[in-house]
Amino acid sequence: MRDGRATRRGRPGYDRESLLRVAVKVFNERGYDGTSMDELAKRLGISKSAIYYHVSGKDELLRLAVDRALDRLFAAADEAAGVEGRAIDRLEHLVRASVAVLVAEQPFVTLLLRVRGNTAVEKRALARRREFDRLVAGLVEQAEADGDIRPDIDPVITARLLFGLVNSLIEWYRPRRGGAGADDIADALCKVAFDGLRRRSATGG
Amino acid sequence: MRDGRATRRGRPGYDRESLLRVAVKVFNERGYDGTSMDELAKRLGISKSAIYYHVSGKDELLRLAVDRALDRLFAAADEAAGVEGRAIDRLEHLVRASVAVLVAEQPFVTLLLRVRGNTAVEKRALARRREFDRLVAGLVEQAEADGDIRPDIDPVITARLLFGLVNSLIEWYRPRRGGAGADDIADALCKVAFDGLRRRSATGG
Repeated sequence: MRDGRATRRGRPGYDRESLLRVAVKVFNERGYDGTSMDELAKRLGISKSAIYYHVSGKDELLRLAVDRALDRLFAAADEAAGVEGRAIDRLEHLVRASVAVLVAEQPFVTLLLRVRGNTAVEKRALARRREFDRLVAGLVEQAEADGDIRPDIDPVITARLLFGLVNSLIEWYRPRRGGAGADDIADALCKVAFDGLRRRSATGG
Repeated sequence: MRDGRATRRGRPGYDRESLLRVAVKVFNERGYDGTSMDELAKRLGISKSAIYYHVSGKDELLRLAVDRALDRLFAAADEAAGVEGRAIDRLEHLVRASVAVLVAEQPFVTLLLRVRGNTAVEKRALARRREFDRLVAGLVEQAEADGDIRPDIDPVITARLLFGLVNSLIEWYRPRRGGAGADDIADALCKVAFDGLRRRSATGG
């Protein structure tokens, strides 16, 4: 019902979506725990009751934000699951689609990756992250069984390293006009992760 | 002078070092901005004045913590700089030494990597991090000039990806008895980063 009335009626300047975007920005800057509703209202330039018009509180803002990030990541996983071919191809597809999600929804994914598990919303987000990790580990395991991934590393560790690499993007990658785009970054990341940064004498790179 | 009197005199239970360790743990759990001196005192089970006996405040605790992490990382870089051979060998040495620092000083490095630049202490930490990044990028560039690193990725991006991978360890790696140790993780990470996770038909992995 709330979505239906998330209009600007009586609250010029913010609908629920723009309120959420500013809140996520503030949470990322100050930390979720470190941001009070008073501070949030101050940053938004509106009253606390104006915030409560849209959401039940900080907790709901966090839930909306982390669910957005998680929903997109699971959509990427569904998409990858539909790719024909070998498990390693589905894995690479998932990596590329995840990079696209991270770049497109950076503030939301940043907030998700900083969740520490202090509240019920955070615990649920951590549980969904673990589900995603298991899914990646399953793909790695299958690709290793296919003989496409090196067998000398534990698949769980390979999966962790691979998505550690993907997730690390939020720490440094910022799309810039004329700079590397999401596709360029996905290409570079896949080259390093799948083939390594060492130059191969046989292929000359 | 402070270090000289950082004894248990009159303040049983904490010297400056153990106070720092608990503070870093609390900062990592609750966020630095989200932790007040009152909360810190509560968690330590001592009065605020007992904390002020050891340090001038939250800010000094943060400075001590991030400097510990940064000093260790720069020591790793100095060590790597002394390695004979090619730039790629120095780079691999730096990656391994950095993994060792991350594992040994995980709470300190975690705090460092979450610094957002809100205060002078944080800005200085970010500046030292950038200096470290430049150092890594310089090694990558040299290794590429030597023909040891693939030339089809911008060295700055290669360096970012490589240390993104290293830094991602703090998010998931926890040393456990019988589990993968720091050396195992460094091995796996170097295999993936330098040679890739794809099985090579020529070498069989």
